[in-house]
Amino acid sequence: MGGDFGPRCIVPASFDALERFPALHLLLCGQRDALSAWSPPASLAARLQFEYVDGLVGPDERPASVVRSRTRTSMHAALEAVQQGRAQGCLSAGNTGAWMALARLLLGTLPGIDRPAMMSALPGQGGHQTLLLDLGANLDTTAEQLVQFAYLGAGAAQARGLARPRVALLNVGREPGKGTPVIQDAARRLAESQAFDFIGFVEGSDLYAAVADVVVCDGFTGNAVLKSGEALLRLLVERSGTASWLERQLLQPWLARRFRHWDPELRNGASFLGLNAVVVKSHGAAGEVGLVQAIERALRDVETDLPGRIRLNLAVLKAV
Amino acid sequence: MGGDFGPRCIVPASFDALERFPALHLLLCGQRDALSAWSPPASLAARLQFEYVDGLVGPDERPASVVRSRTRTSMHAALEAVQQGRAQGCLSAGNTGAWMALARLLLGTLPGIDRPAMMSALPGQGGHQTLLLDLGANLDTTAEQLVQFAYLGAGAAQARGLARPRVALLNVGREPGKGTPVIQDAARRLAESQAFDFIGFVEGSDLYAAVADVVVCDGFTGNAVLKSGEALLRLLVERSGTASWLERQLLQPWLARRFRHWDPELRNGASFLGLNAVVVKSHGAAGEVGLVQAIERALRDVETDLPGRIRLNLAVLKAV
Repeated sequence: MGGDFGPRCIVPASFDALERFPALHLLLCGQRDALSAWSPPASLAARLQFEYVDGLVGPDERPASVVRSRTRTSMHAALEAVQQGRAQGCLSAGNTGAWMALARLLLGTLPGIDRPAMMSALPGQGGHQTLLLDLGANLDTTAEQLVQFAYLGAGAAQARGLARPRVALLNVGREPGKGTPVIQDAARRLAESQAFDFIGFVEGSDLYAAVADVVVCDGFTGNAVLKSGEALLRLLVERSGTASWLERQLLQPWLARRFRHWDPELRNGASFLGLNAVVVKSHGAAGEVGLVQAIERALRDVETDLPGRIRLNLAVLKAV
Repeated sequence: MGGDFGPRCIVPASFDALERFPALHLLLCGQRDALSAWSPPASLAARLQFEYVDGLVGPDERPASVVRSRTRTSMHAALEAVQQGRAQGCLSAGNTGAWMALARLLLGTLPGIDRPAMMSALPGQGGHQTLLLDLGANLDTTAEQLVQFAYLGAGAAQARGLARPRVALLNVGREPGKGTPVIQDAARRLAESQAFDFIGFVEGSDLYAAVADVVVCDGFTGNAVLKSGEALLRLLVERSGTASWLERQLLQPWLARRFRHWDPELRNGASFLGLNAVVVKSHGAAGEVGLVQAIERALRDVETDLPGRIRLNLAVLKAV
């Protein structure tokens, strides 16, 4: 059980989530020392289980060595619970690369998918959300992978209720001639898509503008865009130490309220797409509020059968 | 003379800039029809010249075809004035790719530089600025190019008064093992740098946090980060149509004032680095205020001898 704060944040967040979502059952996998100190309110106990494991994946461990290691960690335990049908989805706030590598190994990818991608929703004007992928699972991507990501993202948008999502490729400009050969190639292939509306290229300035429902890019770029945008938004909702009395009393609370749905903590939880089951990654630095959001993300991905919805799209891709 | 608004914005901005900067002389290159309608205030006339040309580079023309074309455009005229020593620097708000290609052709790159890079300053906490490059001139970059960009950016930081800038590579995480082989290779080479402090990797969330003075990345990522961040900041300073009377009267003006130095319009003007002379690119969508900023950027880059400062750094690079 990882993340920057470990069980002392995850356990209370789990109690909160169980209170909020009556359909939710949780299995918490972690070290006995850390978990046994907690006992849930009696009304929640029936929907909460603990599973004790000795191993823990450290934040700096390399994914390859975690995969090779024989130690059974809390990540292994959570993924095995899904593999064995004891859980329908799983969530970690720990080492992203290790979580992705273990998830691929234990759950496998959907037919036609080389590598899973990581997706999150960006806030936008008028409450619109733009789904952005990949966010760092794949740093160098081929045209074929970008095409696969488009199908993954479209399936996720459909699972969230959009019948015919608008899918775009992130590029340095909107004009058809722009970008690298890889992006040009991906655009040519996506133009033939039947499963969604491929609307061509968007640029960075379109990401928060409700122009597209799904935006596809390589994981390096997506990671930089997501993290830099979240840092900007955090500066926004954060209280400044140098503010005047009036600012602190009146203006900053208004600002925090006005941009509330932009707060990264309130949109925590990235879905791994392309796997045979629901896997979610929480920010390592997420607090209780953020962790409840990530748990809700996993719950919604299970309820809407995200992997099944994507599998349908991939059947269309294979038929093309 | 390009950009979204052409001479009707550029000419009044030029008058403003001449008022503000007594050391400034301007040569405006453009079509006679558009320019001859304007006459400057008598007090400024001695520092303003017009040069009439027939050709104009369109916003969608491909750089390669602009370079091959025999038409003499306003871009050619401005760069030739620098080439011939009639001007010390130049500026365009037109087609970025064409401006870069023509600048390379007519002015040439500094010794040891394969391709120029485009740089801009990101706003940061406490008024700190982080210089980010490349912003889109180079979409696929080699390790060698990233190393060159670091020397270009360090020179620019030194020209802005930082004796020993902190230079970082943008990556998906701060840990030494992260990133692509290209980034790993660039980091190894930069670790030996004598001309500045190479501080290793930063991630997207560090870009507005005053962690580094110069951040180097490929042009695809830099373009997406810059444009998406500017779009977020614009949403921030922009007045919302749905705001209440109190919000419009009190809160929005406060917000605009508080984030004033974050406004992209007030930081308009990207420097092309690695050329033998000062070349600046304004946002196509910049208004008068933004264009004055971009003119000031070119003026400062001339005053601080930006190309000369970079040339010194490149001599160190060759000596390594």
